[in-house]
Amino acid sequence: MNVLNLDDFSTEEINHILDLAEEFKNGKKVDYQGKKIVSNLFFEPSTRTHYSFDMAALKLGCKTQNFDAGNSSLKKGESLYDTVKTFEMFGTNAVVIRHVENEYYKQLVEKINIPILNAGDGTGNHPSQSLLDLLTIRQEFGKFEGLKVVIVGDIAHSRVAHTNFKIMQRLGMTVYTSGPLEYKEEGYNYVDFDEIIDQVDVVMLLRVQHERHTEAMKETVEEYHARYGLNSERVAKMKEHAIIMHPAPFNRNVEIADDVVECEKSRIFKQVQNGVFIRMALLHMVLGENV
Amino acid sequence: MNVLNLDDFSTEEINHILDLAEEFKNGKKVDYQGKKIVSNLFFEPSTRTHYSFDMAALKLGCKTQNFDAGNSSLKKGESLYDTVKTFEMFGTNAVVIRHVENEYYKQLVEKINIPILNAGDGTGNHPSQSLLDLLTIRQEFGKFEGLKVVIVGDIAHSRVAHTNFKIMQRLGMTVYTSGPLEYKEEGYNYVDFDEIIDQVDVVMLLRVQHERHTEAMKETVEEYHARYGLNSERVAKMKEHAIIMHPAPFNRNVEIADDVVECEKSRIFKQVQNGVFIRMALLHMVLGENV
Amino acid sequence: MNVLNLDDFSTEEINHILDLAEEFKNGKKVDYQGKKIVSNLFFEPSTRTHYSFDMAALKLGCKTQNFDAGNSSLKKGESLYDTVKTFEMFGTNAVVIRHVENEYYKQLVEKINIPILNAGDGTGNHPSQSLLDLLTIRQEFGKFEGLKVVIVGDIAHSRVAHTNFKIMQRLGMTVYTSGPLEYKEEGYNYVDFDEIIDQVDVVMLLRVQHERHTEAMKETVEEYHARYGLNSERVAKMKEHAIIMHPAPFNRNVEIADDVVECEKSRIFKQVQNGVFIRMALLHMVLGENV
Repeated sequence: MNVLNLDDFSTEEINHILDLAEEFKNGKKVDYQGKKIVSNLFFEPSTRTHYSFDMAALKLGCKTQNFDAGNSSLKKGESLYDTVKTFEMFGTNAVVIRHVENEYYKQLVEKINIPILNAGDGTGNHPSQSLLDLLTIRQEFGKFEGLKVVIVGDIAHSRVAHTNFKIMQRLGMTVYTSGPLEYKEEGYNYVDFDEIIDQVDVVMLLRVQHERHTEAMKETVEEYHARYGLNSERVAKMKEHAIIMHPAPFNRNVEIADDVVECEKSRIFKQVQNGVFIRMALLHMVLGENV
Repeated sequence: MNVLNLDDFSTEEINHILDLAEEFKNGKKVDYQGKKIVSNLFFEPSTRTHYSFDMAALKLGCKTQNFDAGNSSLKKGESLYDTVKTFEMFGTNAVVIRHVENEYYKQLVEKINIPILNAGDGTGNHPSQSLLDLLTIRQEFGKFEGLKVVIVGDIAHSRVAHTNFKIMQRLGMTVYTSGPLEYKEEGYNYVDFDEIIDQVDVVMLLRVQHERHTEAMKETVEEYHARYGLNSERVAKMKEHAIIMHPAPFNRNVEIADDVVECEKSRIFKQVQNGVFIRMALLHMVLGENV
Repeated sequence: MNVLNLDDFSTEEINHILDLAEEFKNGKKVDYQGKKIVSNLFFEPSTRTHYSFDMAALKLGCKTQNFDAGNSSLKKGESLYDTVKTFEMFGTNAVVIRHVENEYYKQLVEKINIPILNAGDGTGNHPSQSLLDLLTIRQEFGKFEGLKVVIVGDIAHSRVAHTNFKIMQRLGMTVYTSGPLEYKEEGYNYVDFDEIIDQVDVVMLLRVQHERHTEAMKETVEEYHARYGLNSERVAKMKEHAIIMHPAPFNRNVEIADDVVECEKSRIFKQVQNGVFIRMALLHMVLGENV
């Protein structure tokens, strides 16, 4: 069983994953007693997702291997399939993969016989991130149906935006996007941030991803902050129970003002916490309960 | 007890290691219960050997330390001996070392009091690789005596070729080598690949090691593939029960055609699998059974 | 409870830590059974301190996460606080931090709710190193009161010198410093190395830290060795029971002659060994005994 793309999961299955994560949050214990090994294969830099999966595996009593793609055979020109097959042959029990190529996993499924957990593919999918976002929203509002969210930033290059846009609509939410026009994506319900901010339940900010942009952003960092940054003036316009989310890492004083990061409406660090519970649920689901 | 060079082991001892590895393959369980720590010190990039040793240690219930030589005191000019002595003083139970210098271990033995497992020294030795090659051959043919193997590629720079040439001859195999003349080594029984291919039991390909070659190979990659690459035409000439081996990582469509990598005669991924069992045997041998 | 700066600990507390480390040296067993996780966050290269803390955690039966700051969100411009908060939210039980900024921890305390162990801040503090130095001295002389030590090298840039100067004076030792005048620091009791060497109980050498020096050292390496290097002629002048210490990694034939590194008076590798016991004591102290 793989976790590659949320399109592969029914709404019922998604709710089941959220339920299981909530159980872990509430203290459910599972201990694989070191008998399962999870190999984290990160072909792109990552702190959050990498160590969150690692922590989830450790908390389940698994052992982990952490593959540093910078110091490896990949420099020797090995294909992704050959690397992953190698870890399968080693006898690992699951691989967690982040890779720069969209839908890299299509070259792996059918040919790899251990569970693959997609920790982010290019600008495509980031299922565990979306699931932790959903868990955070469900904890807050107890439902998805009828909620309104605006995702603000570089929509075109964001796997978080792409994955959330689809799954949130499926779950009955109204999803808007906003941000610089050069990063606007057709069919993503583009709105003016300042016109929608007082109507949404969730403001989800995206990171200004300097390292991913091949052409420079037209705005300066200061202009971005002025036009799309969440500062205390904009927070004051938000609905009383509305919350602020960000997949992190965030740029203080670019997409979010320094004093807003941990304000009362912010759920940013709670998202980090939920990430470990979601990944425990996903790993437990694919590793099976028969230890 | 160290594992540095197969010359240090009698034929009986080598067979004993292969037997032990076979037992691990057949499900033998050993659990050091986290009471033994293995430190993997890789001073050269490696995926396969590094994570294979790591996996072997984890499967034995050991804990592991994975030392990234790129991010370390080595940049500060520390000697190899001083680094290894430091890990001994830390109280680790064994060190696995890969280093670019031939016979680096000669400066360590006598002065280091914990087991050293050589995971490859320069162009010299690679004992665990040879042992996994031998295990794969023995599983296939049930014997070594009388078998014929041709090793194809950059013989002069290959620790795999050097180690295998000696040990396979000792075990009664006839070993030929082939490949570009500039990488030919005197005394290594050089033959024409296309003349020998229909007579050998094992075709063992070596990686075209771009990163190790100080002077450029005379052939282009395409020429290499045409002259020495194992493609389906050459596979068709191989004996019925002959097998294909490669220490990996391999370059698809250089030393081996894409469609040959996982063909019926290929044992390449089986070698990867056997590598973990061999390393479990070696680690168990040096760590001792008294936990 | 944090371990940031030895100024925060009473003399009684320091002696208690040394006692606990001595117990670990003498075989005391503590086993957290994998239920505690320690995250090592190294924002500066380190072998010794990093893997020493890692080993200490493993020997206590903890699991560890080893964060490679070179391959991470830090490249994405995340603040130190945000990274550490992230690991707290992951649910780790303690963080071990090395960072280039002096007193980096001041931005963390009060806001981070898990124990922080300072593994070195810029040119400021290195509490676990000082404690292992103290343990080594106490094992040798059974006391601190009345002992004389000279610290030789780049005093101005050395967190080891700064931390030891203060704590050793507090414990009743007389502390001198020596070395190139351009690295002399006011108020650090500067003396001529060759005039003091026959009067001290401890000669503590510092590494010539090429990578930390923004302006080149005025001396060549050969001149440094001639003027301040500990060679066998200088060793011969040392008091009968005097010992040689070095926080390591050391440059052979710069601050210490090759044949002096492991001479009878040297405690350099014993310091490495004591480092693990000190870090076991510190980790056990902050993790608490209620598993």
